Amino acid sequence: MEKIQVNVGGASAFVSASGIEALVPDGKAALAKLTDGTGLGNDFLGWVKLPTETSDELLDDINATAARLCELCDVVVAIGIGGSYLGAKAVIEALSNSFAPYIPSTPKVLFAGQNIGEDYLYELKEYLRDKKFGIIVISKSGTTTEPAIAFRVLREQLEAQMGREEANKRIVAVTDEHRGALRTLANTEGYKTYVIADNVGGRFSVLTPVGLLPIAVAGFDIKALVEGARQMEKATLSGTDSSAMTYAIYRNALYRSEKKIEILVNYNPKLHFFGEWWKQLYGESEGKDHKGIYPAAVDNTTDLHSMGQWIQEGERIIFETVISVAKADNELRIPFEESNLDGLNYIAGKRVDEVNKMAELGTRIAHIDGGVPNMQVLMPAITEQSLGQLIYFFEAACGISGYILDVNPFNQPGVEAYKRNMFALLEKPGYEEETAAIKAKI
Amino acid sequence: MEKIQVNVGGASAFVSASGIEALVPDGKAALAKLTDGTGLGNDFLGWVKLPTETSDELLDDINATAARLCELCDVVVAIGIGGSYLGAKAVIEALSNSFAPYIPSTPKVLFAGQNIGEDYLYELKEYLRDKKFGIIVISKSGTTTEPAIAFRVLREQLEAQMGREEANKRIVAVTDEHRGALRTLANTEGYKTYVIADNVGGRFSVLTPVGLLPIAVAGFDIKALVEGARQMEKATLSGTDSSAMTYAIYRNALYRSEKKIEILVNYNPKLHFFGEWWKQLYGESEGKDHKGIYPAAVDNTTDLHSMGQWIQEGERIIFETVISVAKADNELRIPFEESNLDGLNYIAGKRVDEVNKMAELGTRIAHIDGGVPNMQVLMPAITEQSLGQLIYFFEAACGISGYILDVNPFNQPGVEAYKRNMFALLEKPGYEEETAAIKAKI
Repeated sequence: MEKIQVNVGGASAFVSASGIEALVPDGKAALAKLTDGTGLGNDFLGWVKLPTETSDELLDDINATAARLCELCDVVVAIGIGGSYLGAKAVIEALSNSFAPYIPSTPKVLFAGQNIGEDYLYELKEYLRDKKFGIIVISKSGTTTEPAIAFRVLREQLEAQMGREEANKRIVAVTDEHRGALRTLANTEGYKTYVIADNVGGRFSVLTPVGLLPIAVAGFDIKALVEGARQMEKATLSGTDSSAMTYAIYRNALYRSEKKIEILVNYNPKLHFFGEWWKQLYGESEGKDHKGIYPAAVDNTTDLHSMGQWIQEGERIIFETVISVAKADNELRIPFEESNLDGLNYIAGKRVDEVNKMAELGTRIAHIDGGVPNMQVLMPAITEQSLGQLIYFFEAACGISGYILDVNPFNQPGVEAYKRNMFALLEKPGYEEETAAIKAKI
Repeated sequence: MEKIQVNVGGASAFVSASGIEALVPDGKAALAKLTDGTGLGNDFLGWVKLPTETSDELLDDINATAARLCELCDVVVAIGIGGSYLGAKAVIEALSNSFAPYIPSTPKVLFAGQNIGEDYLYELKEYLRDKKFGIIVISKSGTTTEPAIAFRVLREQLEAQMGREEANKRIVAVTDEHRGALRTLANTEGYKTYVIADNVGGRFSVLTPVGLLPIAVAGFDIKALVEGARQMEKATLSGTDSSAMTYAIYRNALYRSEKKIEILVNYNPKLHFFGEWWKQLYGESEGKDHKGIYPAAVDNTTDLHSMGQWIQEGERIIFETVISVAKADNELRIPFEESNLDGLNYIAGKRVDEVNKMAELGTRIAHIDGGVPNMQVLMPAITEQSLGQLIYFFEAACGISGYILDVNPFNQPGVEAYKRNMFALLEKPGYEEETAAIKAKI
């Protein structure tokens, strides 16, 4: 298997063939809208041909910047939230050693600005006190509250530790090409910058410098990542690979038969944050107009001993999509033990992954038997190339799925609601009316 | 505020007063069943009076064992899955520095046996190769597949690195008092042991040695943790504190009005694994007989830029329970900046936590306005004592809630389904019939 594949065999018993067939025209129309730019939110379709339009020059430049940061810094803090955090985090975690934080190596890529935890930021400052560190600050406007606070705090510290001139060499801004607070500051201070294109939304930005720069700093091959995405882009848009279409159609068919929750399942803990990235992609794209599948995720077999009971026997309103990785990177076999007190000798000599695979297969069968539709996304291994394919696959399927659902998959109007209230409560200038209104409420 | 409190004000508009009143007798009957032991699953009620019945001698003994492990080891690996993993993990993460893995200090508490990841276990072995390490192995039977594999692999390595005699000093077993593979091995090799009581299920075991020993090794005050739980136990069982009852009644009332998903929300990333612990507790206790609320969790404000859109505007089948921590441990104020390009000067001088609190309040209001019922569990700070209270609160509420739902909250029959299939696929001796059946299926 060279490319990722989709297997809907475990879902087909739960949807009628006619229900699937009825959605095929919708799916085709949706894909056409993505390629023609004739659908809702068509000013945010920059991701559709992004992989093939990404130049090797840009990738070389990002790699050169990453190399420079690695030379200058023991720690690089990537500041961003939402799509400016989850994409890089997902890819880095997927490709890293499970115990990377414990292993001395440089540079460490840490994240900030993805929360407003006072202890988190305080403890980060303390940790950085005696470190050579740099900052990748990612924000289109430069005024999003969480990253803006983190950047103010950490830039002050970096300048105090290094002096402004040296600090400026260690800050890279990923921001709007022309406008905004961060662009202005970057131009004034002479930071190295990369551009966030106007037509690529945050949750589709992992294959732009937003995701690529932190991934490159962490030591991974962004050319292979983009190459994987290119393969999937070409295959999807030319119609030679219909896996994104199939996945989009099936999940909508399941949703129409009252399956309200989709659980993305992995059997490799390194994919935990890939699940978080996927949750943002689908939740933010589809959760609107009081509809949309609720995206959830589990890490198995860990969560078979947690959510497993619910999945097996709870309300039958769920379906699963399993990311199935064909092979592990390392080989470890279960030792034979003379005494066999634990009764494991029947699997002695087997690779641990073989047991994992039987747990995966056994669980799929048990869940299907228990009334849980099950789809599989098969990938050959966790590599940059496979992850690039997987990312583009889920992005394309998300666009198609959102159009089938008849929402604008590319806006996120609901995200503003809490911000407006927060600004009102903090008495931000310009929010006087909202402040009065909310104070009357509480 | 000395004790945790529950606020259901943000949920009351979504349930009728008569609906709540109708559930009060059920709630009282449920609590009576817990204290009298007259309900379903009454052979698993050991957790109800566990905190007050836990002797200081036991806690002293656990602390002494922890001190010995700390002296002998740079790394202690806690091997366990499900409740034998999540309780300790949740408490340790809640109390640790956010960057603890990056900070040189000993001992590090790592986890194994909570998955069957070949890469995970391989990389752990590699990491431990030049380390002085010890093992806490937690398993009632000693034959649960995941921890049994991890223990076989790591015990072999420890014996190879230290010799058997020295290895045996560095292994502590938490297991059945009399029976099972691990008990037999521990007695033969002379491991220090602690007992898992017959009447305490895994998901209720965090306040037994299962959770307490790893927590003590990580350097936290298990006496304060148990003391917090004792306070809540006394208040709950005597009826002087009705918060567990209130929470249990409201969540059932919301469920009856078609709120199918409960999202546990935190505004402090340290509580992420507390959410995982909670998901196991509620999912495994209630997800059966094709009913039960689907337990989900988000970490805010991180996930406001991910799941926030769905929560604000998706299907109205959710409600939220926010764990609200009154104060941060450290003080960090937002710096003033002359240029004010990012426009943050209106909050300069404020503590970061004040902004976080306004995000929390603003979000609660926005979600309630958007049709999402909202409950709050208020805790004074993230301390051992508060966590002890919180743990007992959620355990008691879970027992009450499960009885109101009319399920046996203390079994988990569905967890066996995947195991049976896995054994069949692996051709485990004694599973010949199942093996034939499953091979015919695939």
